[in-house]
Amino acid sequence: MENAAEIPSDVLDSWFELLRIPSIGAEAAHLDDCKKCAEWLRSRLENDGFSAELVGDGTHPPIVFAERPGDESRPVVLVYGHYDVQPPDPLDAWTTPPFEPVLVDGRVRARGANDDKGQSFALLSGIESLIAEGKRLPPLKVIYEGQEENGSTALTRLAPKLGQRIAADVLCVCDTGESPDGRPAIVAGMRGVAHFTLRLRTGDHDLHSGLSGGWSPNAARMMCELLSSLYRPDGGIAVEGFEDSVEPPDDATLKILAECIGGSEEDFNRAERVGFHPSIEVNGVHSGYGGPGSKTIIPCEAVAKVSMRLAPGQVPEECSRLVFEHLRARVQKGAELSIEEVNTGTPGFRLPTESPLFALAKDLLAKLDPRGPVFVWEGASIPVVSELARVSGAAPLLVGFGRDEDRIHAPNESYSLAQFARARAWARLFFG
Amino acid sequence: MENAAEIPSDVLDSWFELLRIPSIGAEAAHLDDCKKCAEWLRSRLENDGFSAELVGDGTHPPIVFAERPGDESRPVVLVYGHYDVQPPDPLDAWTTPPFEPVLVDGRVRARGANDDKGQSFALLSGIESLIAEGKRLPPLKVIYEGQEENGSTALTRLAPKLGQRIAADVLCVCDTGESPDGRPAIVAGMRGVAHFTLRLRTGDHDLHSGLSGGWSPNAARMMCELLSSLYRPDGGIAVEGFEDSVEPPDDATLKILAECIGGSEEDFNRAERVGFHPSIEVNGVHSGYGGPGSKTIIPCEAVAKVSMRLAPGQVPEECSRLVFEHLRARVQKGAELSIEEVNTGTPGFRLPTESPLFALAKDLLAKLDPRGPVFVWEGASIPVVSELARVSGAAPLLVGFGRDEDRIHAPNESYSLAQFARARAWARLFFG
Repeated sequence: MENAAEIPSDVLDSWFELLRIPSIGAEAAHLDDCKKCAEWLRSRLENDGFSAELVGDGTHPPIVFAERPGDESRPVVLVYGHYDVQPPDPLDAWTTPPFEPVLVDGRVRARGANDDKGQSFALLSGIESLIAEGKRLPPLKVIYEGQEENGSTALTRLAPKLGQRIAADVLCVCDTGESPDGRPAIVAGMRGVAHFTLRLRTGDHDLHSGLSGGWSPNAARMMCELLSSLYRPDGGIAVEGFEDSVEPPDDATLKILAECIGGSEEDFNRAERVGFHPSIEVNGVHSGYGGPGSKTIIPCEAVAKVSMRLAPGQVPEECSRLVFEHLRARVQKGAELSIEEVNTGTPGFRLPTESPLFALAKDLLAKLDPRGPVFVWEGASIPVVSELARVSGAAPLLVGFGRDEDRIHAPNESYSLAQFARARAWARLFFG
Repeated sequence: MENAAEIPSDVLDSWFELLRIPSIGAEAAHLDDCKKCAEWLRSRLENDGFSAELVGDGTHPPIVFAERPGDESRPVVLVYGHYDVQPPDPLDAWTTPPFEPVLVDGRVRARGANDDKGQSFALLSGIESLIAEGKRLPPLKVIYEGQEENGSTALTRLAPKLGQRIAADVLCVCDTGESPDGRPAIVAGMRGVAHFTLRLRTGDHDLHSGLSGGWSPNAARMMCELLSSLYRPDGGIAVEGFEDSVEPPDDATLKILAECIGGSEEDFNRAERVGFHPSIEVNGVHSGYGGPGSKTIIPCEAVAKVSMRLAPGQVPEECSRLVFEHLRARVQKGAELSIEEVNTGTPGFRLPTESPLFALAKDLLAKLDPRGPVFVWEGASIPVVSELARVSGAAPLLVGFGRDEDRIHAPNESYSLAQFARARAWARLFFG
């Protein structure tokens, strides 16, 4: 098992260089940073012997696409990763600036340290080490996109156009997590995801809470009531029909899950809950005054960011329709609701645990950890994976090395050198 | 009836000067502006022949206190006004900058144009015009404070200490509105007010909405559910016992209200609702992400600003206690609620409509408008009025000239020259 000390210093330098680019894909103001980041990757791949290009029309973070011929007798591998990162706010919750990576107690702290610059660069640097050693690799195709955190809009649109060029046997992704006990994990399923933004208007200006209090509609209150209406008193989802098409896991799957999770009932319940059932989460709600002291207003507008995680069987468009109908039916007199879909959604999926690819992966991962890998059914989503799998014809192989303490999407995101080294070692095993 | 053309240009210049000072009493960063504003008023009152001083310990917007001897045979009048203004945000909703007053179509637009710099300065300039003419005025005492929009903390604390110095027969305030049909209005009652801030915590960092969605507590959702729980499905207040001590208006009062309101049933219902019943309003709620695109987090904290308007009979401390108990009982597992009282609250009040003072005011206001004045029971609050009336022994006389289109507390606040002129004329009638 490779350890942290084995990461060459030039690899570490390059990783830091990559982390310094504030490639926030969701924010138009950072489009140039995304372009810079994409070019950094393209040029690196070119140096690695790939033919590499940037795909896109310039209005969005470009897609890096690269190909490298290899041993034709081996399966063609399509590597997917993303170079965009989540917005870093709240900025003042960071101990050090998010785009100035630092190494503290064996962990690299920066936005994107794990998700996904750290994980995907670890994979790439493992491949690069094999190339440097003159190893004969399988035919490789690489896609890095810059909108994963924001719905993969461009790649979802362009993937069918790339068509045969991305045809592959295996879709290799390093953007997921290890088992809590540190064993490697193979993703056997993921939830789908759909995002939307709600805007509620009750007038064209805020009202005085004394003059109108108790009489006029209050956008803040109504938004709270709308969002609350999505949940039953027991915490479940109150949207009628929402869970009707969920395909529950069979007993064999639950048995594998129990084996992979180990003893704790709470851990099992959590894994079962987030792996096989949908959720609706309020990612943010903002209305009216939030500063010091008080401001005696009745707010006239409110905005909420909502995301849904979808279980296998659920059709994103249908789920969105049910939620939107539920909300629209509950908009009170005097208020106007507009719903903007940030994307139309991606379905969840579940993979057969008995495939030859998974058998190979299990054998290789047992070399990283003698306990062998576990299967996980991820609560998270990589929206474009379903689409890439469909278009490329490849079987998804998602093996990543993230951990809870990495705090992805939150302030002070980090990734340890040990995790980076394991991801790099996995690449050497799989591609070598 | 005086018209807008009769406002001397130097009065208009001074009003604009006053409006240019960003005296946001609730924001510590504007303390120096508040001090500047208070000194502007103190020095002006001194020039008017008052003995005038600033009261306070320097840590809060100072209180301007001034006295001027007068005709001992007339009732002593204590004039109260406030020079602090509401925060101007959202700034980008203003057509012109909030602290750069402009005159557009006969209206002065600026934060505080009405509330209360415009109204209280109109009153003062009416008094000044009488002084300039050598008229013999009643003994006058003047208090301008800088925390009205924020609970009048310092004045509430210092009023009892000023004691005999503020003793008066009439408490004259110009901080209220006209009747919707333009008739002058005498305030026969006001609601009380109490403010509080709720902070909800579900952890020390945001979680990933995929990895934890459906399993971990969501502060945004829980805050929405807490705030929603304050209301019944029919829109009423759900807090048990909250309305038990409300003293409903008697039939005679409702008859006067109906006469004052005129024909529309909706207008009557609104006036009855906001005048005689309490309300709880969400002034703001903020949690999680609110920027462009999406951010797939489960927020770990949420803040809400809430204010209550209290009907006569309700005891603020008791109402707060009931609301806080209601909220605390509903905080779900995994969350921590902290409640900060911005102030402890002021009770509402109702005045007898048959008093000699009101009879005099009716006669004088009939000279401004031949239809005569109406009585109003304000939904709004001037928290310190109850306290000042108690300490000074004075009978409140609240006559103001605000209108809905002034948009107080909202962007693009304004006050017309015609309203300013009426307020000034009222001062000339009452003090002359």
